[in-house]
Amino acid sequence: MSRERLVVIGGDAGGMSAASQARRLRDPDNLEIIALERGTHTSYSACGIPYWIGGDVSTMDDLVARSPEVFEQKYAIEVWLRHEALGIDLDRREVIAHDVEARVERRVAFDQLVIATGATPLRPQLPGISLPGVYGVQTLDDGAAVQAALRNSVRDAVVVGGGYIGLEMAEALVRRGLRVTVVEAGGHLMSTMDPDMAGQIVDAVRAMGITVRLADKVVAIEGESRVRAVRTESATLPADLVVLGLGVRPNAEIALEAGISCGPTGGITTDSQMRTSAAGVWAAGDCVETFHRVSHKPVHIALGTHANKQGRVAGINIGGGYATFPGVLGTAITKVCNLEIARTGLSSREVEAAGLSAVTASVESTTRAGYFPGATSMTTKLIAERGSGRLLGAQIVGREQAAKRIDVLATALWNGMTVEDIIGLDLAYAPPFAPVWDPVLIAARKAALAVIDDRKS
Amino acid sequence: MSRERLVVIGGDAGGMSAASQARRLRDPDNLEIIALERGTHTSYSACGIPYWIGGDVSTMDDLVARSPEVFEQKYAIEVWLRHEALGIDLDRREVIAHDVEARVERRVAFDQLVIATGATPLRPQLPGISLPGVYGVQTLDDGAAVQAALRNSVRDAVVVGGGYIGLEMAEALVRRGLRVTVVEAGGHLMSTMDPDMAGQIVDAVRAMGITVRLADKVVAIEGESRVRAVRTESATLPADLVVLGLGVRPNAEIALEAGISCGPTGGITTDSQMRTSAAGVWAAGDCVETFHRVSHKPVHIALGTHANKQGRVAGINIGGGYATFPGVLGTAITKVCNLEIARTGLSSREVEAAGLSAVTASVESTTRAGYFPGATSMTTKLIAERGSGRLLGAQIVGREQAAKRIDVLATALWNGMTVEDIIGLDLAYAPPFAPVWDPVLIAARKAALAVIDDRKS
Repeated sequence: MSRERLVVIGGDAGGMSAASQARRLRDPDNLEIIALERGTHTSYSACGIPYWIGGDVSTMDDLVARSPEVFEQKYAIEVWLRHEALGIDLDRREVIAHDVEARVERRVAFDQLVIATGATPLRPQLPGISLPGVYGVQTLDDGAAVQAALRNSVRDAVVVGGGYIGLEMAEALVRRGLRVTVVEAGGHLMSTMDPDMAGQIVDAVRAMGITVRLADKVVAIEGESRVRAVRTESATLPADLVVLGLGVRPNAEIALEAGISCGPTGGITTDSQMRTSAAGVWAAGDCVETFHRVSHKPVHIALGTHANKQGRVAGINIGGGYATFPGVLGTAITKVCNLEIARTGLSSREVEAAGLSAVTASVESTTRAGYFPGATSMTTKLIAERGSGRLLGAQIVGREQAAKRIDVLATALWNGMTVEDIIGLDLAYAPPFAPVWDPVLIAARKAALAVIDDRKS
Repeated sequence: MSRERLVVIGGDAGGMSAASQARRLRDPDNLEIIALERGTHTSYSACGIPYWIGGDVSTMDDLVARSPEVFEQKYAIEVWLRHEALGIDLDRREVIAHDVEARVERRVAFDQLVIATGATPLRPQLPGISLPGVYGVQTLDDGAAVQAALRNSVRDAVVVGGGYIGLEMAEALVRRGLRVTVVEAGGHLMSTMDPDMAGQIVDAVRAMGITVRLADKVVAIEGESRVRAVRTESATLPADLVVLGLGVRPNAEIALEAGISCGPTGGITTDSQMRTSAAGVWAAGDCVETFHRVSHKPVHIALGTHANKQGRVAGINIGGGYATFPGVLGTAITKVCNLEIARTGLSSREVEAAGLSAVTASVESTTRAGYFPGATSMTTKLIAERGSGRLLGAQIVGREQAAKRIDVLATALWNGMTVEDIIGLDLAYAPPFAPVWDPVLIAARKAALAVIDDRKS
């Protein structure tokens, strides 16, 4: 094989995982690799930004897993920073990139291309949405902008959206001494959790001194040279700083314009090997649409774990190996103050949307043996298919040591286990770690009874 | 059906789970239930005894999940305390029991019988082994005896055996101010772990001020009216107190004498529904032999989780329902000082004994995102079958938040996943809970490469 060139658009998790894996299998004589990154960082943890803002993480550099220098020196991967990809010319097999520093346009030829352009925070079409002081939190540069704003005299912050990022940012800002209000359009925080699990969450958020406005909607951002207030359907909230936590959309325009297929979620579609519809063009990370293993529907879930895995798969295949990305379960976890929150699979609402029918069971139990110091209460909810008893989803809310138990349920779900099967699992027991019936198993017992009762009725 | 009588021998986890489940399905008009318990407690946590001795748990009562009064009042289950079963007369369908208080023998007729006689600490045939001051730790009364000894002036303790119970008791005794020596005949502590994982364990044990003697063997216990020293192959160790941590053997004599089948491990054999070889006679808990899902061999693993599950299964079947016990993986977890230790499936030695062949991979990674406060290092070792890549076993050693991850691997093992499959699992990620590649997944990646490399060689 003559020397090929791989170009990667996007220097974060998806792109750089692909580049590194391809390099592991093909040396520089065989494959030249160039990564185009529009910002100034590579392979960083966007998920860590709220902890940097909140002060748990001291510097931005801590969030960088691998710098451009490491990629160049250790992996022989060229990283072109401050290069924004403007288009893909599939006929000439070139990426058109804007070199922001030099202010010139470059055409970069490729044999293989990985599109890893990430996602962008949703910005609703509202008056004032573009005012300075309104931040999305997706890149390190976004985080740096919030940090810069916090160095000025800011007192009031409004977070729009009460999901993961919204609550993590609300906590960070309260820890930085701001008065924080979260405005959530839905009836409860964390719309990916069932409403009955959300009560504990809103209590924990309010206990931190955060004001929560549920079922209220932002209608405008006010201010002149800078944001000054947020107007909702029912109030005007003073705001020196606004953080958008409304989710993200895939950055797929560049692919779409080149004629590469995107799916109903707006993400780039790929096959299991992360190939797009165009020959020699791959995609990975927050810009792609993926497959939900329970609903069997396409989904767009922007998360570093998926980006890393998809990038790895693309890179192995580009490298001449074989790997596939098996889809996702929608597993997620977060911490609000000391409340741990996790979920996997389908929520009750998603069960319905998928045309499935389920019974549910919630149990209160303890993280350790009840008599062991530090044992705390946790709630585990299981959602099981009617009739079959097949696990469809699970949710956990609790304190220390509670939420990572979701991984057991994610693994059970991955393997199509029924709640009756789960009861038998040989999970680890010792008093400092679990009651003799682990909360996961207690929940499975209750769910199995619910399945039987439902069959009788 | 006319009213039947269920007799249960043994008032702890296995027996009382069976009794409660049977009661749930059959009311007192339909099923009379009598439980014979030779001690004075029901449904207690033997695993909690070291924490009671060490002071984490303040009273013995904390370890009792359900008292005899609760069983009588809430479940209409008669509990006959201080009744030791001496024999089973299968022809007359009677249990012969010794009423220790009244000093009389009683014959208790049964229609259904559950044998849940538990296990007894191994006592090697050594000179002096029966001296006062030598304790096994299996029942609450054993624990009370150690507590009583600690109220006298004791300074030196020797723990014989460096497994789970031995190390938990060694830590408890050191916390009570004793000078403690652990004598282990094998070359490393925790023989159920691979030797390469055991180095961190011995370091942690020694860091607590405990003396560890590896590859040394106790040859005699010395003393006159009471233990005074322990003689090993290479030293004589002063000892006011000796704790046996050499494992347990099933209490199956009563079954064997009645002609009920026992297996090669010495435990009572049962079918999947927990039926013994005798009609209407069931068994559950530490007295039974069970099935290992990976080695496909009979094993005797005395653990509260299995006892509870087996009792539940027996009780459901006695109650007219249907349930089966699916076997075990040998999952276990413990904490030595702040070092967490866990394992599941087969160890490298057990792989060989089962006639299997494996490759292994160990990785060091962090419990949380590397940059997140409180992230600590943990070691994850996976053992995968050569060729197929099927997971055969896993071991974890680390600090806080490390070891319960074994449950993910136990669930993967339960479902026959390969290490390649495991890489794809959608496990929960957020910086306070895991790095973006969870340690389980990093280990799976390394193991998958090891499987491929082995195929090439």
